[in-house]
Amino acid sequence: MGFCNDREDIHSLCLTVVQRLLEKKKIGYGEIGRLEVGTETIIDKSKSVKTVLMQLFKPSGNTDIEGVDTTNACYGGTAALFNAVNWIQSQFWDGRYALVVAGDVAVYPPGPARPTGGAGAIAMLIGPNAPITVNRVRATHMEHVYDFYKPDLSSEFPTVDGKISIECYLSALDCCYERYCKKENRPDVSFDDFDYFCFHSPYCKLVLKSFARLCVNDYFLYSDKEQSDSKYPDLVPFKNLNLKETYFNRELEQAAVKCSKTSFEAKTLPSLMIASMVGNMYTPSLYGGLVSLLVNKNAESLLGKRIGMFSYGSSLASSMFSLQVSKDAGGVEPLLASLGDIPSRLEARTALPPAEFTTILKAKEDSYNKAPYQPTASLDTLTSGTYYLIEVDPQYRRTYGRRP
Amino acid sequence: MGFCNDREDIHSLCLTVVQRLLEKKKIGYGEIGRLEVGTETIIDKSKSVKTVLMQLFKPSGNTDIEGVDTTNACYGGTAALFNAVNWIQSQFWDGRYALVVAGDVAVYPPGPARPTGGAGAIAMLIGPNAPITVNRVRATHMEHVYDFYKPDLSSEFPTVDGKISIECYLSALDCCYERYCKKENRPDVSFDDFDYFCFHSPYCKLVLKSFARLCVNDYFLYSDKEQSDSKYPDLVPFKNLNLKETYFNRELEQAAVKCSKTSFEAKTLPSLMIASMVGNMYTPSLYGGLVSLLVNKNAESLLGKRIGMFSYGSSLASSMFSLQVSKDAGGVEPLLASLGDIPSRLEARTALPPAEFTTILKAKEDSYNKAPYQPTASLDTLTSGTYYLIEVDPQYRRTYGRRP
Repeated sequence: MGFCNDREDIHSLCLTVVQRLLEKKKIGYGEIGRLEVGTETIIDKSKSVKTVLMQLFKPSGNTDIEGVDTTNACYGGTAALFNAVNWIQSQFWDGRYALVVAGDVAVYPPGPARPTGGAGAIAMLIGPNAPITVNRVRATHMEHVYDFYKPDLSSEFPTVDGKISIECYLSALDCCYERYCKKENRPDVSFDDFDYFCFHSPYCKLVLKSFARLCVNDYFLYSDKEQSDSKYPDLVPFKNLNLKETYFNRELEQAAVKCSKTSFEAKTLPSLMIASMVGNMYTPSLYGGLVSLLVNKNAESLLGKRIGMFSYGSSLASSMFSLQVSKDAGGVEPLLASLGDIPSRLEARTALPPAEFTTILKAKEDSYNKAPYQPTASLDTLTSGTYYLIEVDPQYRRTYGRRP
Repeated sequence: MGFCNDREDIHSLCLTVVQRLLEKKKIGYGEIGRLEVGTETIIDKSKSVKTVLMQLFKPSGNTDIEGVDTTNACYGGTAALFNAVNWIQSQFWDGRYALVVAGDVAVYPPGPARPTGGAGAIAMLIGPNAPITVNRVRATHMEHVYDFYKPDLSSEFPTVDGKISIECYLSALDCCYERYCKKENRPDVSFDDFDYFCFHSPYCKLVLKSFARLCVNDYFLYSDKEQSDSKYPDLVPFKNLNLKETYFNRELEQAAVKCSKTSFEAKTLPSLMIASMVGNMYTPSLYGGLVSLLVNKNAESLLGKRIGMFSYGSSLASSMFSLQVSKDAGGVEPLLASLGDIPSRLEARTALPPAEFTTILKAKEDSYNKAPYQPTASLDTLTSGTYYLIEVDPQYRRTYGRRP
């Protein structure tokens, strides 16, 4: 799992990815007309992370950048992405790019949930003539529940009901998938219609189960029962069950995992590379899935392909949508090239033994919400171009530096 | 100033205004396709207020409602409004209405800033064929500063540098106004081009100064210096000043207030009714200004008129945009009629002496972030149809009731 010491926080992570993206793509500061941050890592209840990122733009004089922060658990990045593409399609679009930033630093108290924490940030450049576009159909399910939430403001840790959270995730997936299929105006959409499928990934096993769940949905929803029986013989014994009562049916789950195994390995497994190496990243998790898929496929196997996306944020907000990869290799190949350093960057991670991880998290817990605060961790583990916290002053004002 | 006791919180205020709007306009729950909340009142760092509002929609089965929460101080409502109108203009719009909710409960510790707190919520219905539309030109200024922010998560109170905050507000106004005029592609836009002008209103005197500041800008920016000297003779003595160094120039301010008095009374004073009676409302403040203006004008004096809007959120995010009132009385009159109960609702407020206010705020301070918590305030002061907090359970889960 990824984590950070007291030299990094939600501001520094987002500063790092925005600055790196602009440098990598050689985009000028003045070319950005919108920047929105999706995060559930609230270190200030009023000031947005977006305003902190404005310090990158100040020297250029471009302060005319719409968008602030958007929040609902791991869904904030998707809300920011939707807002950005809507802007570009509106009469208010001024011809410039939008930047969407998803970032989080999530920690748990010592115990079984601790390894489901994580940290990461992803910046996305949104604009016209993109190599990947967002298809028109979006299906959303939002509901007032309490599965994972952060009501104790004096603590960095969330309040979680793990069992309810899995049920919420899977039922939101069911709901979005059924709605998505209906909106496609084809009675018998199946996951075969997607070439690839990325999921929000709290942990990889839930994604395996989620993919199998799509197969269960296909079996239950397909109108020609004879055909679906012959396609999914392993699911026939479960045909009389009520779909809504099967979230914890181990036998059905195992049968569905078995009959969807080949499809899962082809369509979704390539999207789990980053998640399997750094764990959950919260808002960026789904987009880490997309990056993983792109890194693991060559242009030929991506051109013209349709990628299903399922975004979930606890308590809860969820959407299913799909991306269309351009048929034009001239657009897709530069995108893949720009992601070419991901494997070597993953390789360059610093591994720490659990005992050190525990010590670092204890120090972070002790310094939570403290001002003034002087971080003590060494800068040596930070790669070139990474922003880091210099200090929190007595008025809680944070200043940052950047590794050369 | 408006405030609430322990029976109301950001959830209950937003539940109240959304439910009331739907009932008043006789809009079905299924007719809403987007709902976004702008707030800086964070009582959960991950779960959005939007998801709490989904309990109103659940019985109807409509859970397909995009949008979550958006945050940057008092600017969140404007960000949510921009996002809603962008959605309606995009290919992702599905023909349904959007709801934009701006709400806050803001308190200060005992001391001179305490009366600048406030509480309120406003819900706006966004859709096609609207009696008021958003014009295409928008000018934004965002910057990384620390004027008013809420970094101490263990406290309900903000961290404020009052003097910097006034300078930030006025310089953001300058910046947005100059940018707005440039984008209008007319070199000599002046505030005469706006029939009315609403401002974010932390307190009414700042709005008076802000209006005067537009006059100062017009004087300094107008290309024909002779004409501007003759239009603003009182400002001629200040003509050699650097505009950026005049934020605390009392003489200039007084001269500008004097020469803009008539315009201020015609264009902006009618928008200060609610602000002068309930004080600041934070995110809803600017929209309370719009409501006040509409309530104080008849259809005839509004038809075809252009309303300037200046939104400011500390630390900081700001935008200037304008609204166009339809020339069709058939659309505007029902809107005005639907606001007809505002004066009687303001009249029906319960006034409390400062000592009781202090006691109530002390109780709120003591119960901040507590779980379980049982509110003790009487329900008698809550008007019909108001939602209230029943309890916070040991897992911080909040339940609400509604006054009959």
